[in-house]
This record gives sequence, C-alpha cells and structure tokens, in this order.
Amino acid sequence: MKPYTRKASVLWRGSRQRGKGAISTPSAVLRKAPYTSGSDVKRRGTSPAELLAAAHAGSFSMTLAHELGEVGYRPRQIDTTAEVTMETNGAGWTLTQIHLDVVATVPKVAECDFVDAALRAKANCPVSRALNPIISMRAKLSRNV
Amino acid sequence: MKPYTRKASVLWRGSRQRGKGAISTPSAVLRKAPYTSGSDVKRRGTSPAELLAAAHAGSFSMTLAHELGEVGYRPRQIDTTAEVTMETNGAGWTLTQIHLDVVATVPKVAECDFVDAALRAKANCPVSRALNPIISMRAKLSRNV
Repeated sequence: MKPYTRKASVLWRGSRQRGKGAISTPSAVLRKAPYTSGSDVKRRGTSPAELLAAAHAGSFSMTLAHELGEVGYRPRQIDTTAEVTMETNGAGWTLTQIHLDVVATVPKVAECDFVDAALRAKANCPVSRALNPIISMRAKLSRNV
Repeated sequence: MKPYTRKASVLWRGSRQRGKGAISTPSAVLRKAPYTSGSDVKRRGTSPAELLAAAHAGSFSMTLAHELGEVGYRPRQIDTTAEVTMETNGAGWTLTQIHLDVVATVPKVAECDFVDAALRAKANCPVSRALNPIISMRAKLSRNV
C-alpha cells in the first residue's frame, strides 16, 4: 500500500510561560483549539500529553478491532482510555509511561482469544511501535452481550 | 515538580474496516470527534497520525519558546507544522518519519542562536524524546519583525 502523510499545525505566541497556542488539523477536528503546557492545570486547553494519549487510544482500538477480526470475531464496541504519565528527570519533562484501559463488547469471544488479541494490539499498533515509554494495559470484556 | 497524567478516550464501534470511532478528551478540545483510519482518505475524521502530528508540533513549539527564552530572546510567534509519514513494512502500517517545519518571528535574534535553539527543541522536546521515528526539521526566521 502507498505511503501517506498526515499534518497538524500549531501557532504559538509569546514565551513558554505566558504564551499560548492554537492547534489546527486538516481534518478540521481541531480548529485553532486552545493549547497549553500540560503541567499548567489552571489554564484550559489540550496539551501534547493529552493529544498523544488520543493518538494512542485510537491506534490501539482500531488495531484491536483488526486483531479480533483476524481470528473470526466481530467486536461490537471497544472503549479505550489511554493515560500518559509525565515526570521530570534530568532531561526535563519526560513522558515515562502510557497505560491503556480497554473494555470491549465482543459477542461469543473466548476470553483467551480476546486477551491474545489485546496483547497483540498493544505490541503492534502503529503508535505503540513508534513510542519508547513503557506501555501497560488492563483489558476486560464487558458482559453486556 | 510533581508528576502528572493526561488522558483521552476512544469509543470504537464495529470492525476495523467498516467501523468508526469517536475521540474525547477531558479538556473538551475533542468531544466525540470522528476518528477513522488515516489511510482511508475518503472518510472524514482525525487519525492516529494526525493526532500524533498535533502532539509533536505543540510540544516542539512550546520547547522552542523555552529555549529562546533561556538565551534571552522573546519569540513573538512560532508557527510549526509537523508531518507524519506512514508506510507499510513487515510489521504493517509504520510511522517512519516526522518532519517539523517551523517559521518563527523573534525580534532581534541572531540567526545562529535561533538555529541552535531550534535544534535543541527538536532533540529535547518531550514528544521527540518519546518517539522512535526519524525526525527532520526545517527552521526559518520570518523577516516581518
């Protein structure tokens, strides 16, 4: 399949401390969305850590749907929250960990098949493979089938 | 400084091919935003690659503002576009490269100081340090000062 590219732009005005940013994406899902340092909880807006969590939760969920399909299951719903941990170390603010918490509704799935698919998705989704930080996961089946 | 966390959630319904997702973030910048595979250009919505580009452009811009401040300059405006390249290889869709394109307005800056600050921001911003793919950059000063 052909390579493709995706873009996003940030316009930042002012200093690191008092400045502010606006993020836009060609998909128009983000249009001059307010953007601040994630460590500053008093100010509103998204942050690099939040956007990275969004990218990872999305990549993982889609890959899990694929992995379940490969072994013959049709997921009804996959609900994933990604939580990014930022800590300071010698290099400054560092993205040290990402935790994926997934609850899925998959009719007729065997639990071992679900867990295998979730582990494969965690290891192999494009965003997991692009990242250095430690990735942990809790995967659960919803019983409301 | 204290560690902190940031989250985002994706609800995916249906198969990898025909399903669709909705992304939400606590900051409310993304509220059930449509989300699809980035390789499918016919369908609308954001994608993991686009969100990762947004995270990187933001992290880099804020770090560049900081690096310029450290050497005594006050940036007026930093405009960064991050472009993520996705290619298929043995492991499937892979995020192989990110290119940062930055145009900055920095009153009274010496060009060498600007280039040094941009290189430091590219190497040291939290998202750059969290990523494996090759990162390239073109940094330019706007002359409209």
